[in-house]
Amino acid sequence: MPRSTHPNASVFIRVHPWFPFQTGRRARNGKNDTGVMQPLTATYRTSLGLLTDLYQLTMAYGYWKLGRAEQEAVFHLFFRRPPFQGGFALTAGLAHVVDFLDRFGIDEGDRAYLATLTGNDGKALFEPAFLDYLGQLSFTCAVDAVPEGTVVFGDEPLVRVHGPIIQSQIVETALLNLVNFQTLVATKSARICMAAGEDSVLEFGLRRAQGVDGALAATRAAYIGGASATSNVLAGRLFGIPVHGTHAHSWVMAFDEEIESFESYAATLPNNCVFLVDTYDTIAGVHKAVEVGRRLRQRGHEMVGIRLDSGDLAYLSIEARRVLDEAGFDKAVIVASNDLDEQLIRDLKQQGATVAVWGVGTKLATAYDQPALGGVYKLGAIRNADGSWKHCVKLSEQVIKTSIPGILNVRRFATRDGLIADMIYDELTGVTDATRIIDADDPERHKSIDAAAQHRDLLVPVARDGHIVMEDESLDVIRQRAAKELTALHPSIRRFLNPHEYPVGLESELHELRSRMIHDARTKTSEAS
Amino acid sequence: MPRSTHPNASVFIRVHPWFPFQTGRRARNGKNDTGVMQPLTATYRTSLGLLTDLYQLTMAYGYWKLGRAEQEAVFHLFFRRPPFQGGFALTAGLAHVVDFLDRFGIDEGDRAYLATLTGNDGKALFEPAFLDYLGQLSFTCAVDAVPEGTVVFGDEPLVRVHGPIIQSQIVETALLNLVNFQTLVATKSARICMAAGEDSVLEFGLRRAQGVDGALAATRAAYIGGASATSNVLAGRLFGIPVHGTHAHSWVMAFDEEIESFESYAATLPNNCVFLVDTYDTIAGVHKAVEVGRRLRQRGHEMVGIRLDSGDLAYLSIEARRVLDEAGFDKAVIVASNDLDEQLIRDLKQQGATVAVWGVGTKLATAYDQPALGGVYKLGAIRNADGSWKHCVKLSEQVIKTSIPGILNVRRFATRDGLIADMIYDELTGVTDATRIIDADDPERHKSIDAAAQHRDLLVPVARDGHIVMEDESLDVIRQRAAKELTALHPSIRRFLNPHEYPVGLESELHELRSRMIHDARTKTSEAS
Repeated sequence: MPRSTHPNASVFIRVHPWFPFQTGRRARNGKNDTGVMQPLTATYRTSLGLLTDLYQLTMAYGYWKLGRAEQEAVFHLFFRRPPFQGGFALTAGLAHVVDFLDRFGIDEGDRAYLATLTGNDGKALFEPAFLDYLGQLSFTCAVDAVPEGTVVFGDEPLVRVHGPIIQSQIVETALLNLVNFQTLVATKSARICMAAGEDSVLEFGLRRAQGVDGALAATRAAYIGGASATSNVLAGRLFGIPVHGTHAHSWVMAFDEEIESFESYAATLPNNCVFLVDTYDTIAGVHKAVEVGRRLRQRGHEMVGIRLDSGDLAYLSIEARRVLDEAGFDKAVIVASNDLDEQLIRDLKQQGATVAVWGVGTKLATAYDQPALGGVYKLGAIRNADGSWKHCVKLSEQVIKTSIPGILNVRRFATRDGLIADMIYDELTGVTDATRIIDADDPERHKSIDAAAQHRDLLVPVARDGHIVMEDESLDVIRQRAAKELTALHPSIRRFLNPHEYPVGLESELHELRSRMIHDARTKTSEAS
Repeated sequence: MPRSTHPNASVFIRVHPWFPFQTGRRARNGKNDTGVMQPLTATYRTSLGLLTDLYQLTMAYGYWKLGRAEQEAVFHLFFRRPPFQGGFALTAGLAHVVDFLDRFGIDEGDRAYLATLTGNDGKALFEPAFLDYLGQLSFTCAVDAVPEGTVVFGDEPLVRVHGPIIQSQIVETALLNLVNFQTLVATKSARICMAAGEDSVLEFGLRRAQGVDGALAATRAAYIGGASATSNVLAGRLFGIPVHGTHAHSWVMAFDEEIESFESYAATLPNNCVFLVDTYDTIAGVHKAVEVGRRLRQRGHEMVGIRLDSGDLAYLSIEARRVLDEAGFDKAVIVASNDLDEQLIRDLKQQGATVAVWGVGTKLATAYDQPALGGVYKLGAIRNADGSWKHCVKLSEQVIKTSIPGILNVRRFATRDGLIADMIYDELTGVTDATRIIDADDPERHKSIDAAAQHRDLLVPVARDGHIVMEDESLDVIRQRAAKELTALHPSIRRFLNPHEYPVGLESELHELRSRMIHDARTKTSEAS
């Protein structure tokens, strides 16, 4: 196993990548701690060129040594099954993929580090000429992807990277990291917002999220999926997402009397009063909120509402609603929080909970019940020396894990009633038969496509020759697309329990090709063994 | 709900905080895209001053308006139950807390953003004088914490912040984010490494982790918990963690024949050969690895081993071991991966799997079966105008959610046989009775403490008057501490199923005080309602 002999390798480095400028950090105790990282000459950020698995670099080295560094290859990023046992996923993360690719590069510090890696004989893993090659590498691939906020299904390419195999291979890990997580959370958010119906959903997950960027990326994805606001102020600043927040239990505890804490809050922020009422006794707390709300009203302000953060939210919200209504605060909203997710929100609503705003933290920001989307990145085709393409397939004992060869795109068919089916096709052959699709896992399952259906292809150009050609999209445009896409989906596909499986299948010629390749590979394998 | 009227609020911002320097980014398509963030005057990083929940800032505003901004308060960060239904947790994340606090500050861009927030009357949430106050704020608190790599239990303060209430309150969210996640993953890693026993554990989670920093923080925490290496090259560079990697299925697929792919890899990286053998047929793949291993040996190199990434890992590893041994490759290791966790590793070992190196990705980096530690941050005491301390307690319907008042520390008692009990005590009264502890949730449960036991207090000084006083610790020192701490733990506490509950209780006087406070608060509440 390669071990670093980098002089700083075992020195404690106190920074995170979101603290990139370790050198010249602020003086502490009179000493100017210059830290341990290489002095940075770039004026921007620390390099993310090494945000990859080591095997991408050892494979890159292999291709380079074989003179195949520039050989064209096509990779597809896709997941196999929608998360949460649901019927769909909602894409997110592409903006960060674009940013990552736009800045792709391996800097001097990265190369100095790589030069320290050794193999099992104690000798360097990489020869210096290869590191020079990496240093000169710039991203020249073509990238196509499904826009953010699009509804997608299993096996569909979400990102397609076409270009020199070294580049298209090295970026695999970062692309998976960025797309997997944001797509997961956007999907979770969509489910939670569907459960909430007309109510608002606030994202409160920063404190329980997986790291700083885990939180920020989750907030962004949650907003795409339909959340209305976040508690995360930095996400508000960076992404322009509305922010929400009033006070915590500690505010109440910092006063001798609960009502004094509400009064003091109202005196300071009369235009932002959502009183947290459950520090001691919830219903007593609601009465105090009403009392302060009345005084607030005399001063020309309206109480926004109250928040419940513990106990039986169905019972307490019904009781609180009654107290508020009887006191003439029928416009005051009830905000609820406390380990909520889509199942709990649906149950509470079925029990008649009168909550109008749902604060969802941990379960949303970490996608608690399935905290990872199993997205993968597979080689679809590779270009021969004669210019022809070789299709590539990865077999597996599990049918679902056998990959789809080609340079793939997805054609989505729809009628005025909504989406009807998606066809995965190979751009090398195109769509030769638009009348049916064949299930990738079960070739006996066909589906005919209405000849009158409209269609569009899901992949749009993102980069050409390494230059970004996709226009920036505002987060609100993406969010509106998501809302529209979800609406176009049949309710049976959106439901939580045993959703209907949306028809996704292979174009006929692609199916034939793949079947033949699987057959040939199996025959060869069994002859060899 | 506050909505931003910031001119850029709805403009798409393509950067993450780990890409902090949005302005002056590299020219694209000949245009110099200057982005949308405020020009940054600092030479370091983008500010993380807003990495907090909005309610921290609205409360801060309240304290400031009331003239209580500088009032001393003490907060404790703790969790209630160890994660994964286990018997312990292993601390991590403090180094990043230190870094965050050391750079704490709200910059001009942050203030400009806050000035755009409005309340339900459309008017500004914060008055300008408060934003000026925030801009001048520097961190002046005292911080004490349990060092990283320490075994801890429910209710024990992991971080204690003592200082002006505005500061000690604002940092809550960031501290929870940093400590919750790294402690969770360090604990998961410790469990996985316990299951692996003498075998090595490699962390492979980057592609499925929750964001870039979710991955980097997870890699660091996994190393603290006992993992030997990672696939994440950037973590290798930043933290000095050994890196591991050879090749993927795509490498095999990029060649006409599997054996050609192994040969080519061996030609390039003869000192780093772990052949992935399951692309087509696993056992046939092992035979090919052996063939290439023989030729490698003729050239003076030794094959490191093979990797299995699918199928029945118990059966396949036993068969592969036999093939390798019979061919004279008894030193070649078998690396296994594919959705592993501590339960699966334990089961596979019980079935006789001959795996020597376990590659663990998703389940480790996301702490899959419990992706969030429920750490909280509660007010323990607040200083009155006369200089005396007021203890604070938060009641709850759930006994376990009732907080512990005071300025807390943890005294750990041990004999030469290992740890025997932890006592949570209030530094305001000290330890008046060192002979017993009382269960916080069940006052009838007492435990006597051996008079001959040694003891030490877990909290160590981290900052005084806002200056960091804790010495930097190398990651290897922390990792060695963790290994020693885990060894000192009785096996019954380390076991996965129904672990023995390690005795943690309150010091007698603290117990008395807390009982009295709960009684008084309940009496007051019931009189009021």
